[in-house]
Amino acid sequence: MSKWYINAGPDNDVAISVRIRLARNIAGFPFPIRLDIAQKRRINELVRDAVINDKDMNTDNYRYIEMDQLTTAEAYAMVERHIISPDFAENREGRALLLLNDESVSIMLNEEDHIRLQVMTPGLSLHEAYEMADKIDGILDKKIQCAFDEKLGYLTQCPTNLGTGMRASIMLHLPALEACGAVNQLSTTVSKIGLTLRGTFGEGSQAKGAMYQLSNQVTLGISEQAAIENLKSITEQVMEKERNARQSFLLREVLEDKVWRAYGVLKNARLLSGEEFMDLISAVRLGVCLSILNHIKLETVNELIATAGAANLQTRAGETLEPTVRDRQRAEYIREKL
Amino acid sequence: MSKWYINAGPDNDVAISVRIRLARNIAGFPFPIRLDIAQKRRINELVRDAVINDKDMNTDNYRYIEMDQLTTAEAYAMVERHIISPDFAENREGRALLLLNDESVSIMLNEEDHIRLQVMTPGLSLHEAYEMADKIDGILDKKIQCAFDEKLGYLTQCPTNLGTGMRASIMLHLPALEACGAVNQLSTTVSKIGLTLRGTFGEGSQAKGAMYQLSNQVTLGISEQAAIENLKSITEQVMEKERNARQSFLLREVLEDKVWRAYGVLKNARLLSGEEFMDLISAVRLGVCLSILNHIKLETVNELIATAGAANLQTRAGETLEPTVRDRQRAEYIREKL
Repeated sequence: MSKWYINAGPDNDVAISVRIRLARNIAGFPFPIRLDIAQKRRINELVRDAVINDKDMNTDNYRYIEMDQLTTAEAYAMVERHIISPDFAENREGRALLLLNDESVSIMLNEEDHIRLQVMTPGLSLHEAYEMADKIDGILDKKIQCAFDEKLGYLTQCPTNLGTGMRASIMLHLPALEACGAVNQLSTTVSKIGLTLRGTFGEGSQAKGAMYQLSNQVTLGISEQAAIENLKSITEQVMEKERNARQSFLLREVLEDKVWRAYGVLKNARLLSGEEFMDLISAVRLGVCLSILNHIKLETVNELIATAGAANLQTRAGETLEPTVRDRQRAEYIREKL
Repeated sequence: MSKWYINAGPDNDVAISVRIRLARNIAGFPFPIRLDIAQKRRINELVRDAVINDKDMNTDNYRYIEMDQLTTAEAYAMVERHIISPDFAENREGRALLLLNDESVSIMLNEEDHIRLQVMTPGLSLHEAYEMADKIDGILDKKIQCAFDEKLGYLTQCPTNLGTGMRASIMLHLPALEACGAVNQLSTTVSKIGLTLRGTFGEGSQAKGAMYQLSNQVTLGISEQAAIENLKSITEQVMEKERNARQSFLLREVLEDKVWRAYGVLKNARLLSGEEFMDLISAVRLGVCLSILNHIKLETVNELIATAGAANLQTRAGETLEPTVRDRQRAEYIREKL
């Protein structure tokens, strides 16, 4: 079962992927922060059994992972692939994960809420992702009674998630808008209409390699469908801006030069830090989308972005690697793949 | 007749080329600074006739160039190829040049002295260069009475050239010594034994691409042969240091990475400034010498160093080029040659 992120999706030149996340809690239990380890394990088993025993789920394709069975590197490799949150990797005791083999569906148990269901799909595929999330939500709903209030909707630990409990976000690649300094303005504009534009790994994180997350901010007093439609429409406008900037005559030659140089370094360097890699692969991705680099597949770029992080390298190596060794192995891995 | 700088020479991994320069003045004339244009032209013709009419000179291979017939770009293209001095290119009226077609011999007329004879040969070929310079000096001596003093030797405008009038220098490529910060110390050491280590284009110039000129400082009270032997022996010690540094375990991986990246950028960039080019080609040259880049010939690197300067690009293009256009044409030229 090949990983979801290798596949190309609609509008993949700018939209890298969609993520839908639903926060749910089980009625009659305190939020995870107030649970002891034994109670957390009880929640884990409850959800696991509900999902695994359902006839509508293709359960052969799911793995159930008790997080404290993983090494730190294995857990962080999942963070790098956006399967779990950094906090979920850091504090693993009493937490569990249900993971579809292609990694497009993950269910974090006892993260901030009892259940954090996440669906990721390539490109601008908001409806597909939402339908998948909705389907699994329905399955959970049959077996588990969720904490729900007629007025407030789904109850969540953090009030910013009350209501739909849904966060929909799109990972956008905005190198041209970044190059002409238009991202800050864009960020201000979308925040006025209920959306947020932020860095690669969510709240408070830096945008690495010109990768930005655009997501809905409002969860209360709006339907899931309306939130998705709103996000989709704004995303289309942002994509249009990015595409225009990429075609701008003044930027074009500078971008082409950047693309080719980045390709030259990635293809030849013997030592590559994670940070430099992200900057370079960002430029190469742009080059592939603009048909400057015709011999490289977008799938290869997507795969590299997901798998060239420090934790993924260490997991493949099966050991902890010194920074220099890591940088050497990263460079080797990339030369091989390109 | 292919240019001298394309050929490989002895110890070419570190020693790029040798230059021997003899300063001579004609008895009975003031130094050029005190001559008017008509007198300068008289000197030019005197030397031209002496050289061109000599049976020992293969005069078919020499061009006689009146400098004011050249465009600024053509003159500076010669500076970039080290045929003439920057001042000789800048102030061209009344000055002339005798130039062997392979560009290994040039005779500047009415530079600082009446005659500045220069011989360049590839690698550490001090004796070959000196023999050639000595042979032409002998031919001049037959026809022209040089200003000479029994006690002071050859008389020159600048007292630092009195005596032999000879400056012998070796262009050395010292990327490893530069990388480990050893060049300053080396410069101090050689200055104590009568030598100077300086930048690419002589006195006061910066070392571009780790190219340094090592030359004799003393011209008075020493024979030409003794000066050459002294320079040769010190050069061999410097080359040894550079070679050891290149093999140093700690530096090796960093150097390899630098070499490959430089190659990757040169092979792919679409815009390249002259300064960046020198840094990158310096690393590529090192890579060729260390057998890291086995598919590139040292001759190609030597040719690029001599011919990728702004003035050479403009001369080939036959027009003045805007900086961006120049950077684009430089990048194209280099991709083609590599």
